[in-house]
Amino acid sequence: ARPRVGYFFIGKPSLNYISDEIKSILVEDIKSIPVILEESTSIYDAIVFMFLEDVGSIYITNNGILSGVISRKDIIRTVMGGTDLYKVPIGVIMTRMPNIIYVKPKDSVLTAAMKLIEHEIDSLPVVEGIDNSNKDYRVVGRITKTNITRIFVELGNNI
Amino acid sequence: ARPRVGYFFIGKPSLNYISDEIKSILVEDIKSIPVILEESTSIYDAIVFMFLEDVGSIYITNNGILSGVISRKDIIRTVMGGTDLYKVPIGVIMTRMPNIIYVKPKDSVLTAAMKLIEHEIDSLPVVEGIDNSNKDYRVVGRITKTNITRIFVELGNNI
Repeated sequence: ARPRVGYFFIGKPSLNYISDEIKSILVEDIKSIPVILEESTSIYDAIVFMFLEDVGSIYITNNGILSGVISRKDIIRTVMGGTDLYKVPIGVIMTRMPNIIYVKPKDSVLTAAMKLIEHEIDSLPVVEGIDNSNKDYRVVGRITKTNITRIFVELGNNI
Repeated sequence: ARPRVGYFFIGKPSLNYISDEIKSILVEDIKSIPVILEESTSIYDAIVFMFLEDVGSIYITNNGILSGVISRKDIIRTVMGGTDLYKVPIGVIMTRMPNIIYVKPKDSVLTAAMKLIEHEIDSLPVVEGIDNSNKDYRVVGRITKTNITRIFVELGNNI
């Protein structure tokens, strides 16, 4: 008999193709424009801004450096708690660094999706270090479950 | 020369594999348990329930039949508007049928993802008709961008 050379079908190759394709998509390829406010902004103004921009999370900076994140859930909790929305700045109620989960532009979107699931959050700031610092970051984008869902639709429709 | 028969590599097969794999996943395979309240519930109780269940949207029913949806965004708008949260029932502020986008258990998850993107919503009730009616639905599940992100992670990790 002829020696068996060449391709052999030994299982389901499609899952490897999918995994490789998904791993090849980078955060920088699909990130959205970030919505950012300074810490001193009042909670009220932050809420108005959230509606104007129609986003579920806002990233907060202190002189341009990422210092916090605020979500719709945080807003509801604060409003129900009776905080003075006009006087209290957003910096008081935000989730503060270092408790913020983020990604970098060269991370894979798979890494971003895993962080969204693992930490049960809706939004990840995409950051770049300032002056080679390991703690000061500039926000250059945002990745949400909407971005992931959009990729899913594109992959599913073979776009 | 021998006649050319068998498999020919004519492009990038991976994208077709991905598309086929994604289209094969059905809503009923991955749907989450729905979080449901009756129309008569007060807005205040609905907010508390939203936090207890940690969901971004609640489906509202009238005697068990889907009649509305309420999201965190709706809640913030209502609270800021000064509505009496203890007296006004959730039915007054919810998005009402027939303006609700839904999916059925046998729909593909790709269809669900496309609806989430197209209509800019976070959550879709999974419904089944009652008595072959085309307008009365029972809620049997929910699909959110979190479900889609979870599938993306599984496909990316080849699970």
